[in-house]
Amino acid sequence: MKHFFHSDKPFTLECGQTLPEITITYHTYGTPNEDCSNCIWVCHALTANSDVADWWPKTVERGKFLDPEKNFIICANIIGSCYGSTGPLSTNTTTGAPWYDKFPALTIRDMAKAHILLADHLGIKRMAAIIGSSVGGFQAIEWAVEQPWRFASLVLIATDAYASPWTVAIDETQRMAILADTTYGEQRASAAASGLAAARAIGMLSYRGASGYNKTQHDAPRTDANLWDLRRAVTYQRHQGKKLSDRFDAYSYITILNAFDTHDVGRNRGGIEQALSSLTMPTIVIGITTDIIFSPGEMKHLASLIPGARYCEIESEYGHDGFLVENEALNNIILEFRGDVANI
Amino acid sequence: MKHFFHSDKPFTLECGQTLPEITITYHTYGTPNEDCSNCIWVCHALTANSDVADWWPKTVERGKFLDPEKNFIICANIIGSCYGSTGPLSTNTTTGAPWYDKFPALTIRDMAKAHILLADHLGIKRMAAIIGSSVGGFQAIEWAVEQPWRFASLVLIATDAYASPWTVAIDETQRMAILADTTYGEQRASAAASGLAAARAIGMLSYRGASGYNKTQHDAPRTDANLWDLRRAVTYQRHQGKKLSDRFDAYSYITILNAFDTHDVGRNRGGIEQALSSLTMPTIVIGITTDIIFSPGEMKHLASLIPGARYCEIESEYGHDGFLVENEALNNIILEFRGDVANI
Repeated sequence: MKHFFHSDKPFTLECGQTLPEITITYHTYGTPNEDCSNCIWVCHALTANSDVADWWPKTVERGKFLDPEKNFIICANIIGSCYGSTGPLSTNTTTGAPWYDKFPALTIRDMAKAHILLADHLGIKRMAAIIGSSVGGFQAIEWAVEQPWRFASLVLIATDAYASPWTVAIDETQRMAILADTTYGEQRASAAASGLAAARAIGMLSYRGASGYNKTQHDAPRTDANLWDLRRAVTYQRHQGKKLSDRFDAYSYITILNAFDTHDVGRNRGGIEQALSSLTMPTIVIGITTDIIFSPGEMKHLASLIPGARYCEIESEYGHDGFLVENEALNNIILEFRGDVANI
Repeated sequence: MKHFFHSDKPFTLECGQTLPEITITYHTYGTPNEDCSNCIWVCHALTANSDVADWWPKTVERGKFLDPEKNFIICANIIGSCYGSTGPLSTNTTTGAPWYDKFPALTIRDMAKAHILLADHLGIKRMAAIIGSSVGGFQAIEWAVEQPWRFASLVLIATDAYASPWTVAIDETQRMAILADTTYGEQRASAAASGLAAARAIGMLSYRGASGYNKTQHDAPRTDANLWDLRRAVTYQRHQGKKLSDRFDAYSYITILNAFDTHDVGRNRGGIEQALSSLTMPTIVIGITTDIIFSPGEMKHLASLIPGARYCEIESEYGHDGFLVENEALNNIILEFRGDVANI
């Protein structure tokens, strides 16, 4: 079920700027118990929205790790996005026009702060779990470090405690593609649509990796030399680019990429190791064998910095996107973890 | 030493179109023996030129695998490039204007055919070796399959017998970035410079991979939240993009990318396995542990399809670019291989 929360109070960002007001769009599934302790908060990734049941197939179902018959599941659209929460397409009430490229710089910490605002508004205190994958994991880890008392358990999937140089390089490359589109800056939501499509294609490379493409985009042998443009990998990239530029906008995309790159759970907290040492709730870190964004090695390292965290790996050929594809494995791992946690 | 070869004869391409004339710029180092059997032909990669000593550090030196005191080393600039051989910036003699985006579609086989034209012109028959890395390896393998009698040995570094779906996806993404630059199509060499820079940044991601960036582009911890744009990985991507767009052009780049994507040594030769079975000269295939374009697994597979080929791996944190960085390891491997070959 889709809901809206609106606050007329100014929302101060980490960069020092202030949003004059803030709207948060969120979805809930299931029913809260008396103290909302059956609540599971899901943080969504880059271009997803608050409708978890839509973008995370076979998870919000009876018997799965997001079971609406047992749990009260919440997912809020991040600020900076274009799916209903305050972002670059929202009207700047000071000027009466959309923000577009004038939207202030966000951080992952700002996104978590907006989640906190919503949780407080809903009267949710301590929850059963917070779950995040990819940039959703960035928010989950930020929030858990900020308010460790709030979560009985923490589930981090294909994510990290900071934006590594490699991930920043991927993001900057996407920004370069968007800015190469000379329509960027035009005051309309569809500006830089071609650049955005190219940026998404860059993202896809990192989400799928070699194994993903080589598994799914093979061509039959060809005798014609010059028709490279009919190759499956070519049409796949174009299709994925177009699909995103039809549903998202370049300003929101860049806002979220920039926030991604600021991610550092150790910032002004004495460094990553010290920040993570406060996470004493039962925690599971899940890596994917072929993930080239957040490699298994980095995920193991992340787990090693969280007191008592366990590490599990999903065998997949789909790279980082494995977290969206390998629902069965994910479900088994998370349900087993929560079973064990309940037994502690 | 830099040389030029010009042919007034029409050069027919695999696509069916014809270049009315052809110029090939090439470099030589050392002195040929009587029958040129001390010749080593080096094939260069994507945006390199014919000056091997310039782009491949510590290789064209006494005691190295390209020893000008022992060998006669040749490298020809590929057609389609902008470094002196016929390409999109050349004048189309039919119209009197540069080709730009009207340059005909090339294949790797066309590039090898131009190399053959030059070798025949120079009276070089059987050579000691042909060496190619990356797209240079594409040419080397093409030429070796076309004229296996011509080479006493074959050295393939970080390359493949065909363009895999993964590599095609990387190339298409670069094309998308170039075409997102709305100045593409303008009849000037500097058209789509921003798109080209973004494309290069995409290329860099694939050349260096996670280990390359995480090794060399780490930032010191920061307390400021919003200055993501001062991160090293950001300035590195911009710098690399600008460096290429200052020295290369979008039309040549796209021409070579398109040729890359047509690479299939098995095309009209009964498939890859049959084509490679004709390679009976001593062959070494060299992979790089962290190469995410041509993975060690694919390199091993390539070696397994070439009769008697040996496989060696270079330990490196520099990804695909390892072939340009790990000169010491490369030198040892190739010199040992050639020593063994001489002993056969």
